Amino acid sequence: MKKLLILCLLAFFCFPIFAQQAAQQKVISPEIMGDNSVIFRLKAPDASSVKLYGTMGVSDLEMTKNNEGIFEVKVGPLEPDMYAYVFFVDGVKTLDPSNNIVMRDGSHIESRLMIPGGLTELYDVKDVPHGKVSSVWYPSPTLGKTRRMLVYTPPGYDKSNETYPTLYLLHGGGGDEEGWINRGRANYILDNLIAQGKAKPMIIVIPNGNAGSTSAPGEMPLSLRLEQERDAGAGMPRAMAGGSIPEALVKDVIPFVEANFRVKTTKEYRALSGLSMGGYQTQMTTNMFPDAFDYIGVMSIGTFSNFGNYNKDAHIAQLKALKKENPKLYWIGCGTSDFVYQGVLDLMKLYDEVGLKYTYRESEGGHTWNNWRLYLSELAPMLFK
Amino acid sequence: MKKLLILCLLAFFCFPIFAQQAAQQKVISPEIMGDNSVIFRLKAPDASSVKLYGTMGVSDLEMTKNNEGIFEVKVGPLEPDMYAYVFFVDGVKTLDPSNNIVMRDGSHIESRLMIPGGLTELYDVKDVPHGKVSSVWYPSPTLGKTRRMLVYTPPGYDKSNETYPTLYLLHGGGGDEEGWINRGRANYILDNLIAQGKAKPMIIVIPNGNAGSTSAPGEMPLSLRLEQERDAGAGMPRAMAGGSIPEALVKDVIPFVEANFRVKTTKEYRALSGLSMGGYQTQMTTNMFPDAFDYIGVMSIGTFSNFGNYNKDAHIAQLKALKKENPKLYWIGCGTSDFVYQGVLDLMKLYDEVGLKYTYRESEGGHTWNNWRLYLSELAPMLFK
Repeated sequence: MKKLLILCLLAFFCFPIFAQQAAQQKVISPEIMGDNSVIFRLKAPDASSVKLYGTMGVSDLEMTKNNEGIFEVKVGPLEPDMYAYVFFVDGVKTLDPSNNIVMRDGSHIESRLMIPGGLTELYDVKDVPHGKVSSVWYPSPTLGKTRRMLVYTPPGYDKSNETYPTLYLLHGGGGDEEGWINRGRANYILDNLIAQGKAKPMIIVIPNGNAGSTSAPGEMPLSLRLEQERDAGAGMPRAMAGGSIPEALVKDVIPFVEANFRVKTTKEYRALSGLSMGGYQTQMTTNMFPDAFDYIGVMSIGTFSNFGNYNKDAHIAQLKALKKENPKLYWIGCGTSDFVYQGVLDLMKLYDEVGLKYTYRESEGGHTWNNWRLYLSELAPMLFK
Repeated sequence: MKKLLILCLLAFFCFPIFAQQAAQQKVISPEIMGDNSVIFRLKAPDASSVKLYGTMGVSDLEMTKNNEGIFEVKVGPLEPDMYAYVFFVDGVKTLDPSNNIVMRDGSHIESRLMIPGGLTELYDVKDVPHGKVSSVWYPSPTLGKTRRMLVYTPPGYDKSNETYPTLYLLHGGGGDEEGWINRGRANYILDNLIAQGKAKPMIIVIPNGNAGSTSAPGEMPLSLRLEQERDAGAGMPRAMAGGSIPEALVKDVIPFVEANFRVKTTKEYRALSGLSMGGYQTQMTTNMFPDAFDYIGVMSIGTFSNFGNYNKDAHIAQLKALKKENPKLYWIGCGTSDFVYQGVLDLMKLYDEVGLKYTYRESEGGHTWNNWRLYLSELAPMLFK
């Protein structure tokens, strides 16, 4: 036991300059109570105000300081699920120093709270066979860059000679190729669905959807990173969706995947889905390349008729071409309190006019990862059947 | 362009509760100046004190508030390299909200600064073929758990029928299987060395070295995570090195890797290295299993004669057995200002007594990732030659 203790000490000595944080670790936060209410705590004797923000629907919530200098607030009871939260300490965003789980996606960096039961069962790490998640670099001549994607290969992939269907899965605006894994838990959702026999074993390909980037910020060549920082500093928007993502997906990503993974290469074995900006890119891609995918999933995004250069006649012509291809599934999901909700209703009205069939899933809630994890868990079982 | 702007807006709407952070993004931090000095900035009009801590040798450095409420401090000039830093805002640790690159390893969560040139050239994302990094779950009967490792496969692995040598690489105390990738940049170091013809293409296997855990905190089954949190809350040390890591490595990890990856399976194609706690585990493993590895690299750790139950005679007997196996390389690296420096000198004295040959690399600096990245870049070229 003495040996163990000395090794624990080593853990702190490894990073002596951060030894101060050790003091924070005695504060328990977040603490999940028996009724699924949650107490958040932060030791900050010198701060005058600490507020809680979180995807559990909490914003600007003042925490109360006790006489030990610990700020505290109780929230809930909450639905079992996964939430992101941060504190604002005297106006500055901070992670929870008592919680060593951080979620990151694009510029969003927050602490994670996961409450057992309910929806968490969809994506918890269960005692089932696990697939692999790999970071893979590939050439994208369309975008003139070597780019990074994450690829989920299902359990058994490495030991079989089988070929698999592929789901191409696109992240939202402000996110990157790590979002569907880090926040979306796509790999664990599929592990669980496959183990339960609910989804077919499939490969999931998650490219970076920001045309000006190669990859998540920490995985970019430093010169490109610094260039983007200079642009951002000069008030220029970070390069986001760009116009070429649909083309890059069909002309670069799919051929690379089909040449480098054991996948089936006809459209009945290809699905495309995305959330928000990725849902817009999904629409663009299937409008431009109607014969590429037999399964289409649009999450939390509707019409783009108010976007620049919108040409309704051209759009309808594309939708008619897509209708002719008769995709096996065109799935649309949206939350009733999502700010894009009306746009989704408008989109369906347009599809009704054109006669393009779709399946609509309306959930509660808004433009959140809570919904997107749920949608993936419902969409994946419908694919390739 | 209108389309692009609307998509940029979507990026913010995706996470409306965090819209406040958008305001922070106009502050540039860190800003690298022409002479490689660096200005750190934080907008915190309501804070009374902001201090900078960082692995560039800065601790408790008071930042100065200007009349716009922006705290600022200039550091350096710094050697081109990668550094971790945090702010303490009125005593609370925060990341830099102007910097969307976060490094995480175990409980260490910090912002990243990378200065071009110099050592950064070792691990920047270059225009060279990139290997893959995969998260892989494997059974560990020795530890009674399904556990997670990261595996680097070199460029070309998927397209060849070749078998490869393997480097098993162990993280330090308080870290986890993601440290050597996230902070250590082991994949990019190898990409670059392989492209330059300096290192042989090899597989790198990075298991989790904390016997009580399955994986990094965010990748643990929730029940285990909550159990560990309860233990930590009750003042129990988090399960760290444990006694069984060497056995689990040789009996579980190696057989799994050799059955599931195209690797050469004799000891002249196996290397083991680790830093700090991982260097201790490296010593333990090669002492207990002297015929398992032909290449051994011990980073930033010396004797453990002051650990509990140390038996010098038994240790010497193990070292003699190791000497008999005549490993092709026993490499030891340490920084002159490392707190374990004297222990490393003692270790070499003991090896001299036993007649166990080793190669010693002494660097400047301390117990830091700056050294460990450097060591890997020098050790990898010596392997399997």
